[in-house]
Amino acid sequence: MKAAVLGAGVIGAGWAARFVCHGWDVALWDPDQRAVDRALAVSAEARALLSELYDVPLPVRGEFSICKDPAEAVHAADWVQESIPEDFAVKRELFTTIADALPADIPLASSTSGFKPSELAAETPVATQLLVCHPFNPVYLLPGVEVVPGKATRVQIRDRAMALLADIGMHPTHVRHEIDAHIADRLLEAIWREALWLVHDGVASTGEIDAVIRNGFGLRWAQMGLFETYRLGGGERGFRHFLEQFGPALEWPWSKLTDVPELSPELIDRIVSQSDEQAGDLTVDAQRAQRDRNLVALLRALKAQNAGAGVGLNKFERKFQPD
Amino acid sequence: MKAAVLGAGVIGAGWAARFVCHGWDVALWDPDQRAVDRALAVSAEARALLSELYDVPLPVRGEFSICKDPAEAVHAADWVQESIPEDFAVKRELFTTIADALPADIPLASSTSGFKPSELAAETPVATQLLVCHPFNPVYLLPGVEVVPGKATRVQIRDRAMALLADIGMHPTHVRHEIDAHIADRLLEAIWREALWLVHDGVASTGEIDAVIRNGFGLRWAQMGLFETYRLGGGERGFRHFLEQFGPALEWPWSKLTDVPELSPELIDRIVSQSDEQAGDLTVDAQRAQRDRNLVALLRALKAQNAGAGVGLNKFERKFQPD
Repeated sequence: MKAAVLGAGVIGAGWAARFVCHGWDVALWDPDQRAVDRALAVSAEARALLSELYDVPLPVRGEFSICKDPAEAVHAADWVQESIPEDFAVKRELFTTIADALPADIPLASSTSGFKPSELAAETPVATQLLVCHPFNPVYLLPGVEVVPGKATRVQIRDRAMALLADIGMHPTHVRHEIDAHIADRLLEAIWREALWLVHDGVASTGEIDAVIRNGFGLRWAQMGLFETYRLGGGERGFRHFLEQFGPALEWPWSKLTDVPELSPELIDRIVSQSDEQAGDLTVDAQRAQRDRNLVALLRALKAQNAGAGVGLNKFERKFQPD
Repeated sequence: MKAAVLGAGVIGAGWAARFVCHGWDVALWDPDQRAVDRALAVSAEARALLSELYDVPLPVRGEFSICKDPAEAVHAADWVQESIPEDFAVKRELFTTIADALPADIPLASSTSGFKPSELAAETPVATQLLVCHPFNPVYLLPGVEVVPGKATRVQIRDRAMALLADIGMHPTHVRHEIDAHIADRLLEAIWREALWLVHDGVASTGEIDAVIRNGFGLRWAQMGLFETYRLGGGERGFRHFLEQFGPALEWPWSKLTDVPELSPELIDRIVSQSDEQAGDLTVDAQRAQRDRNLVALLRALKAQNAGAGVGLNKFERKFQPD
């Protein structure tokens, strides 16, 4: 199997690592040679991490080929993953550029969070193959991915995408309706905006906000989502009781939801410096490595719990056998 | 040490369990005998879970005394934790009821998410001792707690509260400004409202939303918060690059932040039934037990990673020694 990975930023490199570690050959294209070099390094690290995570040996690693142009990369591919910058015109131009070389009947997946697949595909020759597959950073470890077909996307393409993503250890969620930002980034934007207000108003620092998330609902959500968690908040009387108890709070003036905070240079400076301070002596790279070690440990731990309602098992993970 | 726990719902029972497992005697008051019985059962389960979590033996378990009235419970207490329903008048009446029996110089902590401490304390005789200590469910496992002093709260009371919470294995965050809903519930309400819209509009089910959270940003936030995570999203160029890249999206029409979805009977029914469906055969109790096992596993795993930027070590957890 061969994946063409177009764009080797944080997300593209993560896709390349996931594919190559799961035995796919990867044809990588990015005009920035440094991005390509980093992607190769990330893939080597990802392999070690996935080996720890999985109970069965990884497939023989795929081969990288570094391509000079995107049309060359998509030649004879079984999957194309586009992760170039969020620029509508540039993405559409890329699709036109690769259209002739693109094999029929394979998924052409965009990592975009900013555009709906039908917008991206409109009046392009690739509309029946194009869909959004929006992952989470780091792509090589986090199993979540939103699969959003467009109006013209063929059902077989969607089904093939869902199956192939599961083959590379992911847990795809089919997003049944095209909406701005899909599901995850709608949720994330809401919380992100509120967090920015807290920092903007000087109510709390980035570190205080992160501590509250990490020690509180972050730990909850690693193993059960928002609704599952709130169901438990109602005690034995369940979700209905929770909604009776806390539903009215939605009418209270809790959050500053109507306005957008201006990302002024001052606010950016404040966020950047508070974030740096939180990181202490750690470089971004060291922090990323730490995050990855943490995530491996979390995923191993959840797996050992045989967490039916938590992160599901994929085909590389055996079911836990109690003593 | 003796804690008076007033109210034995989900949160009050969690506090009782945390205190008693860490060697405190607990004077428990709740007019509902079934709530008291459940709290005793929860405490027994919590002890087994905490034994797994900690590397050093737990202190000798404290003793429960079940009290007929709140004034009796607070007699000679070193801590009072109020977790009765979110009714402003009833809470204030309770404070008046216990005022005469309340020892001087001890924290009188409210678990409220709905009220600011200065509002609750205004013109009560307990204003200098009252502060909010807002925990996360399950209180006996999750280390996070928001400590919000009111205008009249004495600094010594706040400092004593922070120290005693650390003594029972928690990681308190001092919330420096009184705002509606403190920090966590501002964030949670923003995401909760958006999630309700998704369900209301039929865009996604509760299960789909939870899958996206759990397989994506939930796993991230168990070990690094929102800002720490986004810092990594910018790659080696860090947070500034991330803000340049994704800041403009805040102006895009992504989320439905201006309106409050009506919690109609139909919407409540939909949420309840989708949530039940997600849970499969699991009762709320079984699901809660599963959540707890997952959380123990997650916390053990993070500890083994010596996660400086993740969930910190408390005094019961030794630093991980590499081989």
